[in-house]
Amino acid sequence: MANSGIPSEQWAQVVEKLGGPVSYKKIAVQKPGPDEVLINIKYSGVCHTDLHAMMGDWPLPTKLPLVGGHEGAGVVVAKGELVKDLEIGDHAGVKWLNGSCLACFFCMQADEPLCPQALLSGYTVDGSFQQYAIAKAAHVARIPKECNLEAVAPVLCAGITVYKGLKESGARPGQYVAIVGAGGGLGSMAIQYARAMGLLVIAIDQGEEKEHSCKTLGAAAYVDFMKSPDLVQEVKDATSDGLGPHAVLLLAVQEKPFQQATEYIRSRGTVICIGMPAKAYIKAPVFDTVTRMVTIKGSYVGNRQDTQEALDFFRRGLIKVPYKTVGLSQLQDVFQLMHDGRIVGRYVVDTSR
Amino acid sequence: MANSGIPSEQWAQVVEKLGGPVSYKKIAVQKPGPDEVLINIKYSGVCHTDLHAMMGDWPLPTKLPLVGGHEGAGVVVAKGELVKDLEIGDHAGVKWLNGSCLACFFCMQADEPLCPQALLSGYTVDGSFQQYAIAKAAHVARIPKECNLEAVAPVLCAGITVYKGLKESGARPGQYVAIVGAGGGLGSMAIQYARAMGLLVIAIDQGEEKEHSCKTLGAAAYVDFMKSPDLVQEVKDATSDGLGPHAVLLLAVQEKPFQQATEYIRSRGTVICIGMPAKAYIKAPVFDTVTRMVTIKGSYVGNRQDTQEALDFFRRGLIKVPYKTVGLSQLQDVFQLMHDGRIVGRYVVDTSR
Amino acid sequence: MANSGIPSEQWAQVVEKLGGPVSYKKIAVQKPGPDEVLINIKYSGVCHTDLHAMMGDWPLPTKLPLVGGHEGAGVVVAKGELVKDLEIGDHAGVKWLNGSCLACFFCMQADEPLCPQALLSGYTVDGSFQQYAIAKAAHVARIPKECNLEAVAPVLCAGITVYKGLKESGARPGQYVAIVGAGGGLGSMAIQYARAMGLLVIAIDQGEEKEHSCKTLGAAAYVDFMKSPDLVQEVKDATSDGLGPHAVLLLAVQEKPFQQATEYIRSRGTVICIGMPAKAYIKAPVFDTVTRMVTIKGSYVGNRQDTQEALDFFRRGLIKVPYKTVGLSQLQDVFQLMHDGRIVGRYVVDTSR
Amino acid sequence: MANSGIPSEQWAQVVEKLGGPVSYKKIAVQKPGPDEVLINIKYSGVCHTDLHAMMGDWPLPTKLPLVGGHEGAGVVVAKGELVKDLEIGDHAGVKWLNGSCLACFFCMQADEPLCPQALLSGYTVDGSFQQYAIAKAAHVARIPKECNLEAVAPVLCAGITVYKGLKESGARPGQYVAIVGAGGGLGSMAIQYARAMGLLVIAIDQGEEKEHSCKTLGAAAYVDFMKSPDLVQEVKDATSDGLGPHAVLLLAVQEKPFQQATEYIRSRGTVICIGMPAKAYIKAPVFDTVTRMVTIKGSYVGNRQDTQEALDFFRRGLIKVPYKTVGLSQLQDVFQLMHDGRIVGRYVVDTSR
Repeated sequence: MANSGIPSEQWAQVVEKLGGPVSYKKIAVQKPGPDEVLINIKYSGVCHTDLHAMMGDWPLPTKLPLVGGHEGAGVVVAKGELVKDLEIGDHAGVKWLNGSCLACFFCMQADEPLCPQALLSGYTVDGSFQQYAIAKAAHVARIPKECNLEAVAPVLCAGITVYKGLKESGARPGQYVAIVGAGGGLGSMAIQYARAMGLLVIAIDQGEEKEHSCKTLGAAAYVDFMKSPDLVQEVKDATSDGLGPHAVLLLAVQEKPFQQATEYIRSRGTVICIGMPAKAYIKAPVFDTVTRMVTIKGSYVGNRQDTQEALDFFRRGLIKVPYKTVGLSQLQDVFQLMHDGRIVGRYVVDTSR
Repeated sequence: MANSGIPSEQWAQVVEKLGGPVSYKKIAVQKPGPDEVLINIKYSGVCHTDLHAMMGDWPLPTKLPLVGGHEGAGVVVAKGELVKDLEIGDHAGVKWLNGSCLACFFCMQADEPLCPQALLSGYTVDGSFQQYAIAKAAHVARIPKECNLEAVAPVLCAGITVYKGLKESGARPGQYVAIVGAGGGLGSMAIQYARAMGLLVIAIDQGEEKEHSCKTLGAAAYVDFMKSPDLVQEVKDATSDGLGPHAVLLLAVQEKPFQQATEYIRSRGTVICIGMPAKAYIKAPVFDTVTRMVTIKGSYVGNRQDTQEALDFFRRGLIKVPYKTVGLSQLQDVFQLMHDGRIVGRYVVDTSR
Repeated sequence: MANSGIPSEQWAQVVEKLGGPVSYKKIAVQKPGPDEVLINIKYSGVCHTDLHAMMGDWPLPTKLPLVGGHEGAGVVVAKGELVKDLEIGDHAGVKWLNGSCLACFFCMQADEPLCPQALLSGYTVDGSFQQYAIAKAAHVARIPKECNLEAVAPVLCAGITVYKGLKESGARPGQYVAIVGAGGGLGSMAIQYARAMGLLVIAIDQGEEKEHSCKTLGAAAYVDFMKSPDLVQEVKDATSDGLGPHAVLLLAVQEKPFQQATEYIRSRGTVICIGMPAKAYIKAPVFDTVTRMVTIKGSYVGNRQDTQEALDFFRRGLIKVPYKTVGLSQLQDVFQLMHDGRIVGRYVVDTSR
Repeated sequence: MANSGIPSEQWAQVVEKLGGPVSYKKIAVQKPGPDEVLINIKYSGVCHTDLHAMMGDWPLPTKLPLVGGHEGAGVVVAKGELVKDLEIGDHAGVKWLNGSCLACFFCMQADEPLCPQALLSGYTVDGSFQQYAIAKAAHVARIPKECNLEAVAPVLCAGITVYKGLKESGARPGQYVAIVGAGGGLGSMAIQYARAMGLLVIAIDQGEEKEHSCKTLGAAAYVDFMKSPDLVQEVKDATSDGLGPHAVLLLAVQEKPFQQATEYIRSRGTVICIGMPAKAYIKAPVFDTVTRMVTIKGSYVGNRQDTQEALDFFRRGLIKVPYKTVGLSQLQDVFQLMHDGRIVGRYVVDTSR
């Protein structure tokens, strides 16, 4: 453990009561336990989940007061006595999964995100909207030195999540995946990961601007759900044999897109649900699901291996994330824009200002 | 092709108009095409689907006039010139999938039941409620000579279907599968297949009689859905670590059992839908499905390999199906009992009377 | 069946006795059986196997007299009565697997190449070194009309084989595959398929010319087995974490490359054997294989689905095969060059001259 | 951490120099680190590996002085501050894998036995031939209280290893597995696990006594490799379709059994190597391996999940291990018997005497 140069106080954005706002203030820097590291966060992405956490939107309670954030990229500045494979000066990331027990049924099969004892950054433990964050060493993302810490921040949640969804879909190189919500922040990453995985993308969204960006990122086809006279047929026609895509990635699950997905998916195909609108339901007709042997599957965040794989695609230059950087001190403004639905791409906060 | 001893006419039960009834009469015996066999049906199981076909309950139209039946066990009496691996005298079964193109996307990956050109016995082509039935040689079940033709008949649809569902569930030996509707005809076969596959069964049904039969067949636990004060908890408690079953087999999909299944299933587990009540919907909360990574999957009938595997478990004496045999001439009476919900176990018809 | 315009005689290259040479002569055109098609071969690739067949190098006996060839691309000109999904005028390919029973244990699980009754083009049945070839309809490659018949010919064996090997390796997008013999004809296709599947390629071969071509095709690293002071270490170092490639494709199995592969492969990785030098043996130390959980796996030709997938990558323009075309009449010259080891890339014969 | 009642000294068997013998003496009891537990070993199985360790037979060096043993069953008596899911009084097992980093490429995908930092009980760290042993909490086997600690000891290495091999084989319920060396200690456990997993066993060994014991444990067939005039044919004939077993478990890899296994294995089947005779080599003909698509795979010890699954089969009463118990003080005598090849079944040592 090397504490030299670590201040005792730091700047952080703190949620003091549900509903917010965040308050920008000085708080104490924590010390890592035997199996933990202290990371000097340089940049952190801002995710919709951070807003949900502040507002108390989800059934699971948050800690309070809370330092949010779970897309934090920085430098290891201290570590506990048991930490062997991380060194002071290594680049590391604080992601949604801050820690897990590593010994339960789920952890033993590498499904740490399902661990009942999982610690969630910026939710059940303090996260990355501060200059110095604690995380379990076994769980911090190992960020290769070639990666720009500012640009990589949004990969730590959004990137991993869409990559995981694509893996879970079982789609193989050369097969089709339809991405619903392809023009948004997650969608644009999903298109790039899918392309890097050898998949053919049918992008589904609305408007010509999104059509342009989806095609630029490499989508084989674009279907505008507002303009299409017959969306189901149009999606099927976009596959070379007309049987429909082998997989569907639902980045925004609403009831209608969901039902459509179970109609245009190829028989034996897989519909992956990622987005989690409040109180939404999956609904599909039993007859078709059975006779066409359709699979519907929820995909949550990635495990540690998914994390490293997703980062490696970024390192190789295959994933470009459009983002805009502001000071950590301006976080509440970002939340306001997010709340008003006025954000395109991702926001990153710089913890030095 | 050896036609000696094959009559030109035979007894059959014919549906002449939707709604029935079946009419017991003499019709011509067909000749097999180059890739077909003619099977002298000795016994045929009677399935709920046969009643649906006669009544025209499903969206897919049937042929008319129609000879129903798709659990026919008999003897090969003639074959086309291309048929190399079946001999006159071999025992063979006519199952739901009478034929498929063997060359489309689905057939090429051994998913013949999904072939758009599939021929369905007793639905789009004549089936097993006659003394001599035609089927594509590549598709008839190869029935080992050790198997009693009367007892094996119900395996040809019901047995294969539940076995397929268990395979699709991905549950491994030593894991738990909950079977909803375990006390019924399909359920009792499902318990036996599950046991033979090394699975631990949590049987879900109602009443003490069914409890007794489920436990006799080897269920590790029985949950009475009418009596249980907290079904979800009780099912989870029936697993040794309390995390719930690794898979669920829904033999009767209704909305409530379906929702419960998505609650008590272990995270990362798979809910298999087999039953197909008219107009039923699968409905599951998105939040839980995503954060617990639950899979919901439709399973239809087995392919040819599943068929042979399911028959092999029967051959080895591991699957006992309770059935009652009547003459083919009495088929309408069986339909009446079925319509009235008064059948326990399976009925088999003997085509010789 | 439409016979108009089909001549009764045609030009063919015939092996009349083992050891050759081939004799260019007129022979009768055959008629397709009920489940067969007649293909007017336009172009055929020439494979090393064709030379082995003529020389009688392998344990399995060939038919005699024999028309060799199993990379034939052409047009369907006649078909049997059972053939529903191919039309006169469709483009189709005659590949190594000319037919199989479609009903045995292996065919039922989509492993047609393992069918004990498999018919082998240009080996146990006449192949593509003639103007009109017969093949089982279910087995002919469906060639999309966008594909140039001359350029696609070598894909029908070489392309499918390396694509199948890559699939069997289980390597996922973003992982490393080492290709031994990457600079040869199969190797150059393997690099392209691997890249299209999102894999990172470590090319292993000898010489600077091959280094140049491998890197041009997209290999991430090149290791010269003649120059490397420590091949095993160099291959491991070529992976970003130094643990070695996740899979190895052995296009030319000799004892030394094989042993090396089991040393540099990542623990839990898979070594795929494709090449089949006469009397060669796989040899690996038990201790390492066990404690590192290494898998060694033979991969033969693709099944029908692999065929269509491999063709689809070609259709999308991702696979470029360098080839040189000569008249069918010059086949013996090509065999001579092949025998002398003087062929770089693939030869294609034009059946019109 | 609760140290009350833990003595400062204990009895142990210590290897002081390679070649042995073990010396029975009092040594200090260690204190567990933050992520460790101290287990009061009650019983320990004696494995051939323990003899290899004492003799220095393997390339990997052992610690010295060394307390051997890696099948230790006992009670948790102290734990470090980070240990949350184990309580004082819990039953736990010290197995071959004493600890691993839980953060490397292999640990992240649940392949802890491949971790380059793995700690090996009774080899690189002190093991279970003492009254109080230290182990990483995340790695100790969780032994259900229903299990007899004496009887369960041999499951901790031998049982887990054969269970893992059966899982790795990919054989599904209803398929055949040939077990080479079925009559030995590992073999008898392998037969029982295979039966519990729904597999059909072809036992291969020599002599009538072993035939009797294999069949009593449920083997479907027994082949005596000393008496069989044609072992390969006899093994194939023991499968219902004559195509050979779907998997082979090689518990004693010698060159001849290995070559035979690649001959009688079904095409597409998997040969699992478990035994590790010094300097042995896997050797298989390339032609057959490729054209029959055979897989050869090394299987090492199980991971933590395999451990719990293997224990659960034991808990359910499906695995009976014949063993003989002596005092820990007599360990050298057991080694002598082992060295002389005079052990049938497993020996267990009681640490209280």
